[in-house]
Amino acid sequence: MASPTNVRDLPTPAVVIDVHALGANLATMAAARPGARLRPHVKAHKCTALARLQRAAGHTTFTCATPREAVAMAAAGLGDDLLLANEVLDPQRLAALAALDAPPDGVTIAVDSDATIAAAASAGIRRCLIDVDVGLPRCGCDPAAAGRLADVARSAGLDVRGVMGYEGHLMALEDRTKQAELVTEAMALLSAAHRDVGGDIVSAGGTGTFDLHDATGVTEVQAGSYALMDTAYARLGLPFAQAASVVGTVVAVRSGHAVADVGLKALGMDHGNPSIDGATVWFCSDEHLTFAAELGVPSVGERVRVLPAHIDPTMSMHEVAWLVDGDEVVDRWAIDMRGWG
Amino acid sequence: MASPTNVRDLPTPAVVIDVHALGANLATMAAARPGARLRPHVKAHKCTALARLQRAAGHTTFTCATPREAVAMAAAGLGDDLLLANEVLDPQRLAALAALDAPPDGVTIAVDSDATIAAAASAGIRRCLIDVDVGLPRCGCDPAAAGRLADVARSAGLDVRGVMGYEGHLMALEDRTKQAELVTEAMALLSAAHRDVGGDIVSAGGTGTFDLHDATGVTEVQAGSYALMDTAYARLGLPFAQAASVVGTVVAVRSGHAVADVGLKALGMDHGNPSIDGATVWFCSDEHLTFAAELGVPSVGERVRVLPAHIDPTMSMHEVAWLVDGDEVVDRWAIDMRGWG
Repeated sequence: MASPTNVRDLPTPAVVIDVHALGANLATMAAARPGARLRPHVKAHKCTALARLQRAAGHTTFTCATPREAVAMAAAGLGDDLLLANEVLDPQRLAALAALDAPPDGVTIAVDSDATIAAAASAGIRRCLIDVDVGLPRCGCDPAAAGRLADVARSAGLDVRGVMGYEGHLMALEDRTKQAELVTEAMALLSAAHRDVGGDIVSAGGTGTFDLHDATGVTEVQAGSYALMDTAYARLGLPFAQAASVVGTVVAVRSGHAVADVGLKALGMDHGNPSIDGATVWFCSDEHLTFAAELGVPSVGERVRVLPAHIDPTMSMHEVAWLVDGDEVVDRWAIDMRGWG
Repeated sequence: MASPTNVRDLPTPAVVIDVHALGANLATMAAARPGARLRPHVKAHKCTALARLQRAAGHTTFTCATPREAVAMAAAGLGDDLLLANEVLDPQRLAALAALDAPPDGVTIAVDSDATIAAAASAGIRRCLIDVDVGLPRCGCDPAAAGRLADVARSAGLDVRGVMGYEGHLMALEDRTKQAELVTEAMALLSAAHRDVGGDIVSAGGTGTFDLHDATGVTEVQAGSYALMDTAYARLGLPFAQAASVVGTVVAVRSGHAVADVGLKALGMDHGNPSIDGATVWFCSDEHLTFAAELGVPSVGERVRVLPAHIDPTMSMHEVAWLVDGDEVVDRWAIDMRGWG
């Protein structure tokens, strides 16, 4: 089968990425946080091809959420300085990460407890960051414990490169003045922990706070969603455009509603329903989306672009993404960092 | 690496299926709706290995939601009588389905419009059901149009085997008396359409209404979730046990909460948060679940069983499922019908 050259020929549901919107997003971020001031988070897209564009935009350090992401990044030649920003206990996965490690930086892992330090050290991991709780009730140690954990990690033979602290609870605040104030407070906790820990790195942030770290002491921001965006981040008025959508085919048209073949198995649903420009989305089923078009009635066979509410889980549901310039398909990317292995 | 023999050794997040609960669910359904009175829907599990057990329980006809599911079922030798219960317009996928077709039954496709009939006929599809709207605003023609569409399909050379009508809007009603009444009303629409259409098959239903079709004229029920179940269906008091969970590793324990590595990329989230017995789930992030245990504090490294709110999209996020007998791992199944291709 010839590779599709137009959006109307793509097998659906199909993730499509607007090459101009993506390029603009990457350029905007690279201007705001050049080089190692951004450590792009690959969990948001799970595409080594997209990570390669992020490197071309000047970023050579990357953040991963899973060991599989780190393994795939290294295999793609993008493993100069990978941070696995999650705690891992699995000895086999840690050993696989240790085996990737190339001087001078290679693989660095987040640790937040004696148990995670012991697991990393005994698997041969060489570098870590102390993960500090800055207010999101998830991983991360009590800030007051960070210094002690750094000592434990150094005693276990790990190079402690610094700290990280993800202010995820502040990522979606729509009042940006209030958000800036709370980010500064959260980062004061991280800075205090950093004084106890040492090292060169203070890693934090995300797309929703990428521009609030000029005076927080943070050396690198872990943003990922900025590249493709979604309707949840779009509400924040950030300087990034929605570059990704899921194209569906209209498979049924009834009086008052139409149905496209983009269902909840093709969309991250934790942030609610997706959107369609010029239409009201009623609900998603496994393989269907029921919507009412506001202007005109669509035809069976017509294509429709569905904007995901949450990009990260949407990407992880698809095997491929199609790069498009208008309706022309210009490339096909494997979404090659999915799953856990 | 040796294959894990105990749940404590599984790489997480890991879908585990309790072999006894699954066996009981299959037996209960096979007793209630033996043989072809059930056409098990494979979209709920996407495992040909599980479909093989459904065949061993006496069901030789199956329902699929995607062309890829049908192709995988046929490749696994389970393609005697496959119903693709969705409208498809893609000529290449329709041609692939037509190529699977083996007499006497092979592949039957749902159609609900002139366009879907034309697409099926021109791709060489031989059999269809007329998909009728019985109240769920999704696909399915106006019941009054079913007879005309059957004529169109027959003129196009298709064998019209009957009708289908999915009462999805009634699937989760907790008042079963009311539910039975509404199902009967919805099926009256389907029966009327069937009189206009002809054919042997009247296909409808799902796990939530499997036992309400004794007098509705329905010849086969398309239930799928009954095999593995989820917390949404568990609320209905059906005679099926929750056989599937997603096992995670506790990666962090803080004062008041703990974190497991089962996030929203490992769980269908459209029905809300998952559950953990003896704990309160606070929220899910991409790769994390934050929860508060009610009895005792878990330890870092401990395993936790997370019950998904919606099984169908949960299965589609994982590559493998592990069959367990207690904590012993007895088999590994590929979830081999994922994606769209």
